[in-house]
Amino acid sequence: MSAPGRLGLGVDTGGTFTKILLVSKSGTVLRGAKVDTRPDRPAAEFVRRVAAAVKRLERAAGRRAQNACLAVAGDVDPVRGRLRRSPNLPMFEGFPFKESLSRALSRSVEVHNDANMAAWACYAMELKRRCADVVALTMGTGIGGGIVLGGRLHTGATGSAAELGHMRVEPGGAPCRCGAAGCLEAYAGKYGLERMARELLAGRPGISSRLRGRGRIEPIDIARAARLGDPLAREVWKRAGRALGIGIVNLVYLLNPDVVMLVGGVARSSELFLGEVRKILKKETFRAPFGHVRVAAARSSDYGALGAALYSLESRA
Amino acid sequence: MSAPGRLGLGVDTGGTFTKILLVSKSGTVLRGAKVDTRPDRPAAEFVRRVAAAVKRLERAAGRRAQNACLAVAGDVDPVRGRLRRSPNLPMFEGFPFKESLSRALSRSVEVHNDANMAAWACYAMELKRRCADVVALTMGTGIGGGIVLGGRLHTGATGSAAELGHMRVEPGGAPCRCGAAGCLEAYAGKYGLERMARELLAGRPGISSRLRGRGRIEPIDIARAARLGDPLAREVWKRAGRALGIGIVNLVYLLNPDVVMLVGGVARSSELFLGEVRKILKKETFRAPFGHVRVAAARSSDYGALGAALYSLESRA
Repeated sequence: MSAPGRLGLGVDTGGTFTKILLVSKSGTVLRGAKVDTRPDRPAAEFVRRVAAAVKRLERAAGRRAQNACLAVAGDVDPVRGRLRRSPNLPMFEGFPFKESLSRALSRSVEVHNDANMAAWACYAMELKRRCADVVALTMGTGIGGGIVLGGRLHTGATGSAAELGHMRVEPGGAPCRCGAAGCLEAYAGKYGLERMARELLAGRPGISSRLRGRGRIEPIDIARAARLGDPLAREVWKRAGRALGIGIVNLVYLLNPDVVMLVGGVARSSELFLGEVRKILKKETFRAPFGHVRVAAARSSDYGALGAALYSLESRA
Repeated sequence: MSAPGRLGLGVDTGGTFTKILLVSKSGTVLRGAKVDTRPDRPAAEFVRRVAAAVKRLERAAGRRAQNACLAVAGDVDPVRGRLRRSPNLPMFEGFPFKESLSRALSRSVEVHNDANMAAWACYAMELKRRCADVVALTMGTGIGGGIVLGGRLHTGATGSAAELGHMRVEPGGAPCRCGAAGCLEAYAGKYGLERMARELLAGRPGISSRLRGRGRIEPIDIARAARLGDPLAREVWKRAGRALGIGIVNLVYLLNPDVVMLVGGVARSSELFLGEVRKILKKETFRAPFGHVRVAAARSSDYGALGAALYSLESRA
């Protein structure tokens, strides 16, 4: 537990930018900064750049955070504080972030997967710790997640828990970037949505659609078309909702959470697929867990740095 | 935490018999008893019968357990200590077990799902608390489960967590008793195995099989035939292994456990399907969680009462 008045420091490393936030215990942002990640440069240089930005922030705030937390996309080893694998940041793989950033910032640093930190923001900030069992499903290019159970972040035996995007929702189905087939993200992640749109366009040449004739189709285009009533675009969201529904059915049977919160860019279009998800959940005959769980889109789509900052306040170091 | 020398008392209520165990903190069984469940009689009578048996046991042992734990098959509300739903014990649904048994035994009583208690036995006894994150998959008529994370039993928001048998492994696939299609237990539970055997026999009339011409086919018959090399019986186990493999892939992505332990009658035939399960797990490209997890059959197939007895020692009441 943190003493009142302590500050949290969160660093969220994306493929292009890295966000830094200094927050109060209640989640109020005191100061924020953005630095280039430059994943093509050595990780040690990144650490120096982040440390310099933190010092500027804290000087401007006139206060200092006791601990810090670094959020990174990829498979994180939270014990050793390293990035095991990250398709977006291959140059940073294996670098001792915990050690290096601790030294540069002269304080204790934890390293976690960014979706885990988003889950912590949902739990601690958006839901105000009123629900003990919360699953966050992050919907961006891929699909990730974070799990808070009994008010504690569940990171798993190797720190790899909550890889929700790779649950099989259609074994033998659509190819996934991971090499397997039928993963949730192959239907409801950004590239999954794009693939479904292209396939439907090709498979139904007779149906007119606002998506036709475009070079590149992004989820935002599919959302815009669906909102204007485009039947093909609506079908894409319906299929994504169905895949998501099966995935959420599975995680409700496993975890019996209070809330499943959808976070990230694609979740901003939740009104286009949440109906299908809820229809699927409603069919389940186990009423206690399915009658209890609430599935909703998070208010913010950008919770990595905030979650990391709040999580840094949980450290007892 | 329990003081040394304290005794645990576990009661495991099955459809026919109820087992009662008095155990030491290390899991050594001091005394055991078996009473008829008589699910056709009122639950209050069952409570009196259990209480009388416990008194006899404790008199014979010359010692008394401080708390007790009741394990029941079905959807248990652990907060109110009631059985919400149980296909095997419909007459017991809604009965205030926690209250009634606490009064009859003059001590604090917890009520939990029997598969959750089996998971606790795997964690506390078989694995000696050396692994923090353990999933037990109970394979009997249906498939259930229990989840221990960070050394704590995860029961979920309504006490319904770990209903592993209803994860969808083949959406739109074989019909499940729950009303849905493609659930894990429709492939790897007792009745799922029996259905697959019947379907294969009917679908491949030209293939000779030891299972042909039998009125009733039980998993033990399918196991016996498979061990003698019967190709059709081997195919049944292969399919069960494939379904189980997909289910375990999903739960490894979600929970990243140290161990997945198979418990119960069907798990005794694990040598017939674990090869297929492991083949499926091996294909996954996320090496940290899949390289770490161990999937194995439990040494005992009967962990409900033992787990409940050990779990009663966790209570701080």
